[in-house]
Amino acid sequence: MRIDEMSSPEFAARVKDNPWVIIPLGAVEAHGRHLPLGTDSIQPQWVAERLAERTGSLLAPLLPYGNHSSTRRMPGTINLRFDTLRALVLDILESLHEQGLRRFLIVSGHAGGAHMTALKEASKELLEERDATVIVLTDYSVAAEIAPSLGIGHGDGHGGALETARVMAIRPDLVGEDMVAGEFVSPGYRIYADPERCFPEGIAGDPSVADAAMGERLNMHVVESLERMMEESVDG
Amino acid sequence: MRIDEMSSPEFAARVKDNPWVIIPLGAVEAHGRHLPLGTDSIQPQWVAERLAERTGSLLAPLLPYGNHSSTRRMPGTINLRFDTLRALVLDILESLHEQGLRRFLIVSGHAGGAHMTALKEASKELLEERDATVIVLTDYSVAAEIAPSLGIGHGDGHGGALETARVMAIRPDLVGEDMVAGEFVSPGYRIYADPERCFPEGIAGDPSVADAAMGERLNMHVVESLERMMEESVDG
Amino acid sequence: MRIDEMSSPEFAARVKDNPWVIIPLGAVEAHGRHLPLGTDSIQPQWVAERLAERTGSLLAPLLPYGNHSSTRRMPGTINLRFDTLRALVLDILESLHEQGLRRFLIVSGHAGGAHMTALKEASKELLEERDATVIVLTDYSVAAEIAPSLGIGHGDGHGGALETARVMAIRPDLVGEDMVAGEFVSPGYRIYADPERCFPEGIAGDPSVADAAMGERLNMHVVESLERMMEESVDG
Amino acid sequence: MRIDEMSSPEFAARVKDNPWVIIPLGAVEAHGRHLPLGTDSIQPQWVAERLAERTGSLLAPLLPYGNHSSTRRMPGTINLRFDTLRALVLDILESLHEQGLRRFLIVSGHAGGAHMTALKEASKELLEERDATVIVLTDYSVAAEIAPSLGIGHGDGHGGALETARVMAIRPDLVGEDMVAGEFVSPGYRIYADPERCFPEGIAGDPSVADAAMGERLNMHVVESLERMMEESVDG
Amino acid sequence: MRIDEMSSPEFAARVKDNPWVIIPLGAVEAHGRHLPLGTDSIQPQWVAERLAERTGSLLAPLLPYGNHSSTRRMPGTINLRFDTLRALVLDILESLHEQGLRRFLIVSGHAGGAHMTALKEASKELLEERDATVIVLTDYSVAAEIAPSLGIGHGDGHGGALETARVMAIRPDLVGEDMVAGEFVSPGYRIYADPERCFPEGIAGDPSVADAAMGERLNMHVVESLERMMEESVDG
Amino acid sequence: MRIDEMSSPEFAARVKDNPWVIIPLGAVEAHGRHLPLGTDSIQPQWVAERLAERTGSLLAPLLPYGNHSSTRRMPGTINLRFDTLRALVLDILESLHEQGLRRFLIVSGHAGGAHMTALKEASKELLEERDATVIVLTDYSVAAEIAPSLGIGHGDGHGGALETARVMAIRPDLVGEDMVAGEFVSPGYRIYADPERCFPEGIAGDPSVADAAMGERLNMHVVESLERMMEESVDG
Repeated sequence: MRIDEMSSPEFAARVKDNPWVIIPLGAVEAHGRHLPLGTDSIQPQWVAERLAERTGSLLAPLLPYGNHSSTRRMPGTINLRFDTLRALVLDILESLHEQGLRRFLIVSGHAGGAHMTALKEASKELLEERDATVIVLTDYSVAAEIAPSLGIGHGDGHGGALETARVMAIRPDLVGEDMVAGEFVSPGYRIYADPERCFPEGIAGDPSVADAAMGERLNMHVVESLERMMEESVDG
Repeated sequence: MRIDEMSSPEFAARVKDNPWVIIPLGAVEAHGRHLPLGTDSIQPQWVAERLAERTGSLLAPLLPYGNHSSTRRMPGTINLRFDTLRALVLDILESLHEQGLRRFLIVSGHAGGAHMTALKEASKELLEERDATVIVLTDYSVAAEIAPSLGIGHGDGHGGALETARVMAIRPDLVGEDMVAGEFVSPGYRIYADPERCFPEGIAGDPSVADAAMGERLNMHVVESLERMMEESVDG
Repeated sequence: MRIDEMSSPEFAARVKDNPWVIIPLGAVEAHGRHLPLGTDSIQPQWVAERLAERTGSLLAPLLPYGNHSSTRRMPGTINLRFDTLRALVLDILESLHEQGLRRFLIVSGHAGGAHMTALKEASKELLEERDATVIVLTDYSVAAEIAPSLGIGHGDGHGGALETARVMAIRPDLVGEDMVAGEFVSPGYRIYADPERCFPEGIAGDPSVADAAMGERLNMHVVESLERMMEESVDG
Repeated sequence: MRIDEMSSPEFAARVKDNPWVIIPLGAVEAHGRHLPLGTDSIQPQWVAERLAERTGSLLAPLLPYGNHSSTRRMPGTINLRFDTLRALVLDILESLHEQGLRRFLIVSGHAGGAHMTALKEASKELLEERDATVIVLTDYSVAAEIAPSLGIGHGDGHGGALETARVMAIRPDLVGEDMVAGEFVSPGYRIYADPERCFPEGIAGDPSVADAAMGERLNMHVVESLERMMEESVDG
Repeated sequence: MRIDEMSSPEFAARVKDNPWVIIPLGAVEAHGRHLPLGTDSIQPQWVAERLAERTGSLLAPLLPYGNHSSTRRMPGTINLRFDTLRALVLDILESLHEQGLRRFLIVSGHAGGAHMTALKEASKELLEERDATVIVLTDYSVAAEIAPSLGIGHGDGHGGALETARVMAIRPDLVGEDMVAGEFVSPGYRIYADPERCFPEGIAGDPSVADAAMGERLNMHVVESLERMMEESVDG
Repeated sequence: MRIDEMSSPEFAARVKDNPWVIIPLGAVEAHGRHLPLGTDSIQPQWVAERLAERTGSLLAPLLPYGNHSSTRRMPGTINLRFDTLRALVLDILESLHEQGLRRFLIVSGHAGGAHMTALKEASKELLEERDATVIVLTDYSVAAEIAPSLGIGHGDGHGGALETARVMAIRPDLVGEDMVAGEFVSPGYRIYADPERCFPEGIAGDPSVADAAMGERLNMHVVESLERMMEESVDG
């Protein structure tokens, strides 16, 4: 299942079945006082492992760095430039395609606008030259679909209850107790040189309402939704 | 120690001590019939973890993809272009530098010539603009220093006894039993479109002479050598 | 007011007052059967002219090409690559900055995701090196704020009632009578090589409900909103 | 005729006739005290409109920015880098080619050497991959063919009598009265960091000898020459 | 005088006098039946050697490749892309500048439009960041100033009497006897995929009128003109 | 034999025999007190000329600039960036390939790691798209094979006895008498901003043991080895 744990002949044998490849993309990014910098790696990695098991897909190694805007200057964020991230994803897709693979699911923990555009631009570039089925998403958006039903409020976002709950369900040891509620102060349409001003507390929402059970439901919702998406995309 | 397991305030606190950052670079690359595709990730990751513990350094998340030549067209190798890898390493170094860090140890599991040049070019580019201490190496070369003393022969190389022993000591579950001796058939100075011809068996050396004890000695030699190197570089 | 109608000394004199520069960005893009290819140029140009008059701002010449995804392969769409658009906007901003200007409002008629990211990335790049006030938006989003109050339904979008009404108010001669209702068929998270499949009729919404009065209200709402935004950004 | 005023189906219908596309390129550039910054937009736009009417060609929207050297640091000049301009023109040509068009006439108001090279390099790049008829010119050069016969002297150039006359014939309201004669002081083969030294008055020639009738003859000469050129290129 | 024949300490000593560096640029380009492919290297190299001797300048090694358009597809032409040539010249200038040199004379044997633009763009880029005196020219243009006085007709050009005479004076052994008169058939403003059509005989002019004495006068005119140019540029 | 001394028809005739093209790459680089900056040009040029004669190959003009690390900041070194060198070699290879040539031997006098990687990356890029036989080497490595048999010690390297002897055999007039022994102080795995610290005397080895006879044997060994290599590569 994990590509990096297979031998070369095992990989060659698996490619013949035309499996999906799940490519988890993480990040090292400030997520407030209570969540680890790898929050956006922990979530898609867990999802990708479950999904690969359930669907018999290949699991590519997690790419643990992303492109960041509003948190870029906060302590701990490591940033790839837009062009670097796009090139990286394109190289991985092309290389897997040359290996004979044709179905790709990119699951990004980080949901930033420019970050997601980089992933989509790489995917479009692949499709201009080659035939493939490509899905690109952030599992954050999928999880957020059921957030209201779990009592997570409208202003919840980066580092908030949703993300806190999800990490609690996967790596409770990495969730700190120093939780404060925070707000995303919209910049409107301004572009700021100091965009961290949008996150005075470094997060959006009230992480203290999160618990592991909530996180499990969110995580399972993502896994089940993605599994369905893959099934429905087979003839796409 | 692991950057991705720290919170943003914990990271900020650690930066004040001017610690080293250890950046492990792995690969997904064909390593014969018996070794996993992630062989070059497993080794530097283990080294980097031990080293970070012993020296109190920060540990950056493993970058699991590299640039490959002779194995590029073998089943399972995933390849980043030279420019992508160089940009990626430069972005990570610059971003860590902007976070206030000044000491970087890059440990690459993969030892390919172009791959290593990409890492060094990125490092040189950093140093043209910024002040820092940078070490770039492949732990393969460091381990190979004591290979003769362990009875590993001259022709040993990619996927051979040295690498097999090291993986046996770390992840014995991933080492297969289908071991054949192989040879690196030198291309001389030819550049081939099908460089896999240099590895008819996909590896160089006789993996069957490897055992876990040998691997432990190789791994510890790397850790101790790198620790010494870091100490000696402090005033450089 | 229009930069291209000023002489060099007139421009120099105006720069001393530190005025805003309004930069309208248009497009040549398929907008169904009834709207002209320049629909996304007509709207921001009209807005920019009104806004420049009301605020005493400088008006840069309209850039009439953009970056397109879902309509790229429809008849009449002219497409700039992401990197070209980003470079173009960065060059214009840098050049205006070297001329002494410090306040920039970019109004894009086209609202595509990658297109908007290109504009924002260029703006961020400017701000990394230079001090300036930058606003980047698509007037489509601003107009859409009041669409429900005008009876424009939820599925309205590209080439629909909102855009039809706005063009009717500005250039009624360019609005055709062959109006059909259309739908945006969400691709979910799939990236398609033939994204025009999302617009079977080339548009989203029911243009036949549009009229010029509706368009005037939408257009004036945009002008007034942007004027307020500029006033509120003065000390930002 | 104007692409931006056609609907998508109208455009598709026109493409079937294999028409020429006329692409006017303008500029925002200092032209002395008496001419507007858009002088190099006004001229090719007028020419392109007449030409499209007379020949039944498609008219692409004016690109209003160019690449400048000697006037770059004068008030009002907005400059695109060489690479940006080349990419822009290539993207537009490729996109029109993908739309089925095969005949392109690029008419640039600005006549700078590097600017013209950028346009030609883009055209050559198109022709390396695709089959097309491409004409690239600055209407300044074409107009200058008859300048002596109109009494315009040898030293006339940027912002001089020829350009003044042409703008007088098209937009007399934009021509100021503060006309001084100027000189282009040749830099020889020196490359200067302050090339505006070549234009102490910002222009070359004596604009005061210009009048609208002269401009009309220049403009019509350009239109007629270009029409002939298009006819003669049909079987090229 | 020749940089490549100096030792490092000799170079360091010479730099202190702030000498000019003369950088000859050659080409490998088809020049008809009778002239060698290195015609555009032979001429500037001879000029640069004489000039360095007379002025006590440093002589950089000849760069023997250039960028070509109309002869690109003729047998023997070796072509650098525009971007490569520009980068090459910029690197050489920057490197010499970092070595402490501040006066640069670039003498190109090839006179192509895009080729010359590449040289000038590199020079402008240098001057945007650094202080220096830069002259860029093709010695062809300088030699052509006196061509009429030597009886060389108006249509003379690439591979014609002027170039033939100059090579006869320097390397008579390389001038063949198979001389035919040729013509440059102007493409007007067309850009052709097969621009060699402009040179049906591969050259322009009548080489048979050339002789070595004519070449000596042309060559000495170039040397003397450039020497004067350097003297006059000292305080620029 | 020398491409730049052939006419276009002579070149065309020779291409039909499918000859090898030998491409010598030189450098302008500090080589201690006694050797000329062009040391790395003199050696491969001499080798290439002999080799072309003996094998009936085409000889391309020497490219006299390279990419340097440890000597970059020493007086006299002229440096091309990695990307420039790679582009340059790729352009030359592609252009020769378009001319119908299929066998390329690149002989570089400079042996730096990044420099050699640039040459190899360009060659690999050629081979991804086109069919050809490519050999890339530094003649330094080939000469060094017999260095021990000539009494040249282990620490000999840049500017040492081997290079001194070789230049003595070719251009004795350029070898100075101020010879000091020097040492390459290994940086280990450190990347330094001031890598010239590795060469306190600017060279490695003891040049005073060199003589012309030794140089002749080294040079002939290179020529004979390369001739054999070419013969053995014919069916590769």
